[in-house]
Amino acid sequence: MENKLALLKQQINEIYDLHYVLALLDWDQQTNMPSGGVENRASQSATLSKIAHQRLTADSIGELLDDLSDYQAELPPDSADACLLKIIRRDYNKQVKVPAELVEEFARITALGQQAWEMAREKDEFLLFQPHLEQIVANRQQYAECFAPYDNIYDPLLDDYEPEMSAAAVKVLFDKLRPQQVELVKAISEAGQVDNAFMSRNYPEDKQWQLGLGIIKQFGYDFECGRQDKAMHPFTTTLGLGDVRITTRIAEDDFFSGLGSSMHEAGHAMYEQGIDRKFDRTPLGSGTSLGIHESQSRLWENMVGRSREFCQYLYPQAVKMFPEALVGIDNEAFYRGINRVAPSLIRVEADEASYNLHIMLRFEIELGLLNGEFAVADLSEVWNSKMADYLGVMPENDRVGVLQDVHWSCGLFGYFPTYAIGNLVAAQLWEKIVEDIPGLGNFISQGEFSELREWLRKNIHCHGAKFTPQELVRKVTGTQISSVPYMKYLNNKYCEVYGMGARG
Amino acid sequence: MENKLALLKQQINEIYDLHYVLALLDWDQQTNMPSGGVENRASQSATLSKIAHQRLTADSIGELLDDLSDYQAELPPDSADACLLKIIRRDYNKQVKVPAELVEEFARITALGQQAWEMAREKDEFLLFQPHLEQIVANRQQYAECFAPYDNIYDPLLDDYEPEMSAAAVKVLFDKLRPQQVELVKAISEAGQVDNAFMSRNYPEDKQWQLGLGIIKQFGYDFECGRQDKAMHPFTTTLGLGDVRITTRIAEDDFFSGLGSSMHEAGHAMYEQGIDRKFDRTPLGSGTSLGIHESQSRLWENMVGRSREFCQYLYPQAVKMFPEALVGIDNEAFYRGINRVAPSLIRVEADEASYNLHIMLRFEIELGLLNGEFAVADLSEVWNSKMADYLGVMPENDRVGVLQDVHWSCGLFGYFPTYAIGNLVAAQLWEKIVEDIPGLGNFISQGEFSELREWLRKNIHCHGAKFTPQELVRKVTGTQISSVPYMKYLNNKYCEVYGMGARG
Repeated sequence: MENKLALLKQQINEIYDLHYVLALLDWDQQTNMPSGGVENRASQSATLSKIAHQRLTADSIGELLDDLSDYQAELPPDSADACLLKIIRRDYNKQVKVPAELVEEFARITALGQQAWEMAREKDEFLLFQPHLEQIVANRQQYAECFAPYDNIYDPLLDDYEPEMSAAAVKVLFDKLRPQQVELVKAISEAGQVDNAFMSRNYPEDKQWQLGLGIIKQFGYDFECGRQDKAMHPFTTTLGLGDVRITTRIAEDDFFSGLGSSMHEAGHAMYEQGIDRKFDRTPLGSGTSLGIHESQSRLWENMVGRSREFCQYLYPQAVKMFPEALVGIDNEAFYRGINRVAPSLIRVEADEASYNLHIMLRFEIELGLLNGEFAVADLSEVWNSKMADYLGVMPENDRVGVLQDVHWSCGLFGYFPTYAIGNLVAAQLWEKIVEDIPGLGNFISQGEFSELREWLRKNIHCHGAKFTPQELVRKVTGTQISSVPYMKYLNNKYCEVYGMGARG
Repeated sequence: MENKLALLKQQINEIYDLHYVLALLDWDQQTNMPSGGVENRASQSATLSKIAHQRLTADSIGELLDDLSDYQAELPPDSADACLLKIIRRDYNKQVKVPAELVEEFARITALGQQAWEMAREKDEFLLFQPHLEQIVANRQQYAECFAPYDNIYDPLLDDYEPEMSAAAVKVLFDKLRPQQVELVKAISEAGQVDNAFMSRNYPEDKQWQLGLGIIKQFGYDFECGRQDKAMHPFTTTLGLGDVRITTRIAEDDFFSGLGSSMHEAGHAMYEQGIDRKFDRTPLGSGTSLGIHESQSRLWENMVGRSREFCQYLYPQAVKMFPEALVGIDNEAFYRGINRVAPSLIRVEADEASYNLHIMLRFEIELGLLNGEFAVADLSEVWNSKMADYLGVMPENDRVGVLQDVHWSCGLFGYFPTYAIGNLVAAQLWEKIVEDIPGLGNFISQGEFSELREWLRKNIHCHGAKFTPQELVRKVTGTQISSVPYMKYLNNKYCEVYGMGARG
């Protein structure tokens, strides 16, 4: 049996080599590839995706899994091998239902779709992207059909990113959360607004780049096993546990967006960099779900990066780098400016209080689109009307509207809800961290992040995908995924920032 | 039969997708990969190489080739399909003799070897590289053994880069060439030496970068289908005919080395960019041999880039960019400085007159190493003593000696002779070009390269690998590959530069 397990692992290792190479193809497309390379890139992604899929769904894998099922049952359930076999079986059972052609087509149309999205966004012409998106939506519908019957066509897609979650469960979560977030945003809008005009003064790109690099190095992002580049949309990608890369984007008229992106992506990357290296080249060698992943990125971006203590650490560095832009801004104004709440158009730049509303909007649009309630051609109109409803703002063009995010061009339907789940889990973890690390605030205000990083490494990162999201959250906090700590965190923080009375 | 041909082409297309992806893995390693990624990269290259090899040598390919042999015989011999089938058959017949494990190992040890070479070069410690190189030499010996019997163990390796060539034929060529080049270098050394002290003044990196970019753009290197990056060793790589990338390296105390590298690699890249797009994703979609490839790079670097006419075009730009470094240097001194002949340590920076001596040295060392006449451990000593013999110079360390070139770390044994062949072919083509394009000198001095580029595209580039090197040279020049035009070119040029009487 040990031989069969070794054989299975070897085959899985090679499949993961292919997945890492696919990640490189995508990273390169988003950072370096000249526009003329897109047809080649689409073929390369399609061929490699097909081969990876054929290898995972090969009869030999199914037979090895069958042969190993008694062996697996006898292993301690928390052992690495038991968890590995469980996940391989889950992935095998899922992928074996999907025809290779659909996988190949998905890789091809999303490689082409990404370039079309970039052009459409640059030129603010949704029509350039529309035919691509129509193909992608159709492909995702066909993919979901492979798993019929389902409660909602959304479920098989969501399951790829957030195991154990369903559209119905997300709805329950969002239905509870929405009125509380709307109420908070409303209360804030009735308080006196914070002035953050300084945030949109001129912050030269190269200095922003240096500031961001310095901060994430201090966080503990390991540049021996990673690098940061610029891309149209910030992302993290893993080319193996020894090579976890991030990207950011910088706007010279925005102090926080580039830095926030860097801290966010470094949070993702430190998760992967912290995984036990013995899980490399296997499905255990990645974050357990995108929700848990997002808990890491949002924790570093917000609980740390937008905290009063971090601003104490950041402020003198920022003043030194941008003395003109920050003239007349004291530490308190700096902190409050960074935490100004005002419903706005761009998700990745949204304040903490309104962020989840962006996610709810996307979730509803995805549900409507996949269930055929409206067409891709109507997307811009639907988007704009929902923005008005949810956030009270109206995009003046698609560039800052429906074309703002890369996800749909990559076919990532079912992905957005994980951002909101990440916010909730981040707050749950933060409560526990504050308990476990006395003096955490002092550490942060002194730029000392190693205690925090090691806590995360030990409690979250090292496990990779060994535990399911709910198992992991329960293991660490003793509770299920819940929105209570998040709303408590938001209410406390923003009542203080806006000088409002305590809230429920 | 058309169906079978289509099926074969489809399989070959996918194999070439894998080759292009392998090229990306290597490009990324040499330009971007963090050091921690090397183990993952080695596994990825090994897995992909194995899959590409297994696919090419699959029974189904052999059967399709057999089924198509009568069909092939009836095609016009110069038709694309006939040429394609011929090359697929050649590659299949060769690779089917090689075990997949050897291919996989080669990819793994060369990925690791490259990083070891980089470190060894940085630290000037040959011992860091030695065990890697020993593995690589052993692997190449085993690879060559797959093709026994052979006249020389070198032949199967050389054949991968230069079909129709053998170690014996290279010896004949070099034995004729060596005394003539040695005599020329000696004559020059007895003439009054040119002063080129200005060449090693300070030339800021960013300005050199801009100058190089401008020049190769003017040559016609297409940045829509390519890009230039920095790497420890300059190279060109094709990720598909829509994405042909080059790298360069810049030394601030050397006016020409970065620019020369850029022009050289752009010469390679324009060859691939000029191939008929219908050959993309097939073995026809690349240069027909490395010798012919090198004829293109050396032609742009030397026949163009070191010509009197080009210096007329370059000089005012250079003076504008580097007014301090070029103070007191007139156009004539500039031209003569760039063409100063002085035997030196670094091949890629060698003058035209002594360049081939570097190649002969490497050829002899490779022959000795592969035939077991000396060990990797002796390499540094052998190198230094041959440098003294051939070029009369002695490396003061391995960094500028045996560790200077990337090739052996990549396992590229049998590759170096193609550089000398390229020089010869470049001169043969140049004679024809000068005949075919009246006023070429004037075009060049005005920075107008389109006539030249289009001549090359039409006569050389577009054919890809349709014709063998000898076929192509005969088709264009009416003669075999020969050293006569090259020696004539060198003698004419350098007698003029050094004010010597007519030679040869």
